[in-house]
Amino acid sequence: MSDDFRVARKTLQNHHITSSQSFTKHDLEYILSITSKMESGIHSKTNSKLLDGYILATLFFEPSTRTRLSFEAAMMRLGGNVITVEQAMACSSAKGESLEDTGHVVSQYADVIVTRHPESGSADRIASKSIVPVINAGDGPNEHPTQALLDLYTIFSEKKKLDNLKIGFLGDLKFGRTVHSLVHLLRFYSINFTFISHPTIAIPQHISNILKEYGCQVTETEDLESAIKDLDVLYVTRIQKERFSKDDNYDDLKDKYQLTQSLLNTSKADLTVLHPLPRVNEISPAIDDDPKARYFKQAENGVYMRMALLAAVLGKSPNQTM
Amino acid sequence: MSDDFRVARKTLQNHHITSSQSFTKHDLEYILSITSKMESGIHSKTNSKLLDGYILATLFFEPSTRTRLSFEAAMMRLGGNVITVEQAMACSSAKGESLEDTGHVVSQYADVIVTRHPESGSADRIASKSIVPVINAGDGPNEHPTQALLDLYTIFSEKKKLDNLKIGFLGDLKFGRTVHSLVHLLRFYSINFTFISHPTIAIPQHISNILKEYGCQVTETEDLESAIKDLDVLYVTRIQKERFSKDDNYDDLKDKYQLTQSLLNTSKADLTVLHPLPRVNEISPAIDDDPKARYFKQAENGVYMRMALLAAVLGKSPNQTM
Amino acid sequence: MSDDFRVARKTLQNHHITSSQSFTKHDLEYILSITSKMESGIHSKTNSKLLDGYILATLFFEPSTRTRLSFEAAMMRLGGNVITVEQAMACSSAKGESLEDTGHVVSQYADVIVTRHPESGSADRIASKSIVPVINAGDGPNEHPTQALLDLYTIFSEKKKLDNLKIGFLGDLKFGRTVHSLVHLLRFYSINFTFISHPTIAIPQHISNILKEYGCQVTETEDLESAIKDLDVLYVTRIQKERFSKDDNYDDLKDKYQLTQSLLNTSKADLTVLHPLPRVNEISPAIDDDPKARYFKQAENGVYMRMALLAAVLGKSPNQTM
Repeated sequence: MSDDFRVARKTLQNHHITSSQSFTKHDLEYILSITSKMESGIHSKTNSKLLDGYILATLFFEPSTRTRLSFEAAMMRLGGNVITVEQAMACSSAKGESLEDTGHVVSQYADVIVTRHPESGSADRIASKSIVPVINAGDGPNEHPTQALLDLYTIFSEKKKLDNLKIGFLGDLKFGRTVHSLVHLLRFYSINFTFISHPTIAIPQHISNILKEYGCQVTETEDLESAIKDLDVLYVTRIQKERFSKDDNYDDLKDKYQLTQSLLNTSKADLTVLHPLPRVNEISPAIDDDPKARYFKQAENGVYMRMALLAAVLGKSPNQTM
Repeated sequence: MSDDFRVARKTLQNHHITSSQSFTKHDLEYILSITSKMESGIHSKTNSKLLDGYILATLFFEPSTRTRLSFEAAMMRLGGNVITVEQAMACSSAKGESLEDTGHVVSQYADVIVTRHPESGSADRIASKSIVPVINAGDGPNEHPTQALLDLYTIFSEKKKLDNLKIGFLGDLKFGRTVHSLVHLLRFYSINFTFISHPTIAIPQHISNILKEYGCQVTETEDLESAIKDLDVLYVTRIQKERFSKDDNYDDLKDKYQLTQSLLNTSKADLTVLHPLPRVNEISPAIDDDPKARYFKQAENGVYMRMALLAAVLGKSPNQTM
Repeated sequence: MSDDFRVARKTLQNHHITSSQSFTKHDLEYILSITSKMESGIHSKTNSKLLDGYILATLFFEPSTRTRLSFEAAMMRLGGNVITVEQAMACSSAKGESLEDTGHVVSQYADVIVTRHPESGSADRIASKSIVPVINAGDGPNEHPTQALLDLYTIFSEKKKLDNLKIGFLGDLKFGRTVHSLVHLLRFYSINFTFISHPTIAIPQHISNILKEYGCQVTETEDLESAIKDLDVLYVTRIQKERFSKDDNYDDLKDKYQLTQSLLNTSKADLTVLHPLPRVNEISPAIDDDPKARYFKQAENGVYMRMALLAAVLGKSPNQTM
């Protein structure tokens, strides 16, 4: 293990993971490396007792099947146990308990907490009094750091590199939490960003400014058909109808930005299409079997990355696989 | 293991169980045999690590305490883990995700999926994109194959045979999903069927026709008092008030078809009374302690049968017990 | 093990725990002793496989994150498994099933049941047909015996004795279920009780009468400032706004009875402040770090006590720790 990895390992152990902006490049590379070990060990059940005797508490103040089950599966793949609140809104908080108190008490029952809550900053409040590591699985419009990490791992895993890639982002770039979080991780690498969207939901100025400061190339366009031609990765997000006023003509836009087989045929042969899911109309199910479509693999990778992160905050190193 | 069993074992491994109509007679006999082994091994914890390291996902789009807990207990009795969505309606599907996508993603988190959903055909849709076996725990009015299997096992276990039995079905035979599913399994055996109900909720013509094609004897009657006298098994179901219009005089019917101790006393000494539960008024709790009442044993058998089915679709054979 | 302990151990094994009034003094001392062993063994994971292969069913007919997670963590700390219904109201009971039937069926899936339900007497009804031990985790205004046991353990653990203590109770003493249950356990000891409350929500006469019969000293007062001066323990409860009519001037009372740092400074140096949580305004978060504030340790102790109780009803003795 390199010195950089030793530092990253120590940084993550017993630390809260509430923002994607707190990672160093070494942290990211350490997590990618552990995730890769988790993935290669999964079928041989190499690490299936690594977290034996540990308890994960998943506290979901708003429902999210995918994220919750992904964390719980990750914990169980490592031999750990799970206690869960599927609908935490109905419980202690209804009796007027503060998030700080909830975090304090639950941290006495479990060894690590994963939380989702509709309010910005809620994860930090829960973490502030917790005596065990807290992982933010989404705090409203604010952050969703594990989605960003699994996206990063998927790009790395598909392309075998993170530098010198041309990555397009399509859809709701203004409100899309996953885009913002991922962009904060990618700023460490030599990425050529192409942001493709209707101007109403374009990437915020302060984010493209940060990327430029870090030396990344940034292009903005409304024209998916031209932009797709030389992308290495296309990251699609759901356009949420409720963001649009009537005059913005949502239905036209929706059709304009649907990824179809004919559009896909104009891309580079090794394009990787990603999507945080759930998808609605923005990607046609007809392309699911195209080798370029990697969004389901991306969801699968979420389990490996969460295995890595749970092990890291609990101070456990995965065993090597042959 | 006989050749027939080898074929059945291979058929079940990695297969979806969404309908009771897809089983061959060999499949059924294989499942009965494995269920019996699970039951005899339960107290010695013979198979308590058989599914160690495996994950079951229970996806319930409508609540069903009994069925969900029965599957989860079965998984845990074999050493497996469970991730669960108690109220799946509130989650990804609310964001417009298709059942196919949900099935695909969850199948990357778990090794086997059990699903309940109010719509006919939902289990097949979830199964269509799943990369792991999907077991249907009820898709609306359509199918509930594991209830039928546990009913079949209970009859076999109580009577030590499935041929040459006179089996009565009482209650809502028109809409009762469990009756239809069970009848499809029993068609392979020499059964004398007696369908006892008010004409409003009589057994559908197409079902009695199938039974006659298979050579079974079929009788229909409204007269429980006469019919009960020579039955070997009486399978009672709940009459759902909402099926009746005012003129149908639901309250009279309800009283007419309540199974009481005095009625039970007119039956054969070795009658077996079954009910898929929950029961409301159709069976008096006063007869629960009568040796003829086997509906709670039937619920217990559900765990053994589900242990057998989970092991079968995951390709694991139970150990013998001494 | 003493003879008294042998009797208590035998009493608890396979018994329902639905009321705090059914314990003998020997039962309590046995439970305190086992809880202490569980606490001292927790970090060395001494008993982490004691309940391996056992299943706990938590049936919650009303939400209670804290209590449910505490029981589930306790079960998992001993190596056991958990099946859970977070929102049981929506399920079988909605189909008209009796609590007795629910208890009977679920007892065939699990080895021990923990239940919470808004109706008085519900736990006894569920227990009446269960073939495994049932533990009451709150049946409406009636009983919450495990809260009382963890409170007792915390007092014992903090004070190293239960006799010759001056214990104050503050807040809603009329409707507060936890106060009533705890008082029933403390009646066995030489306790000087001080009940501090507005007369509207004073301790019921029948409870102070019982205490006097058992030889305890009982004082009632409205004056927290005077009373706090010579207390060994102050047990605070939440004042529920809805209990007050407009004329009772709830807001004045609320302020009067808020425990603050300045008030705490007037108490004995070794005062122990307890609260069953969740707290709202009655204890200022500013005193959380004061060594007198032990309500979070109290919540932690709940896990050890529930480990002890689960082991006791399942007939398992914890291993010694060095």
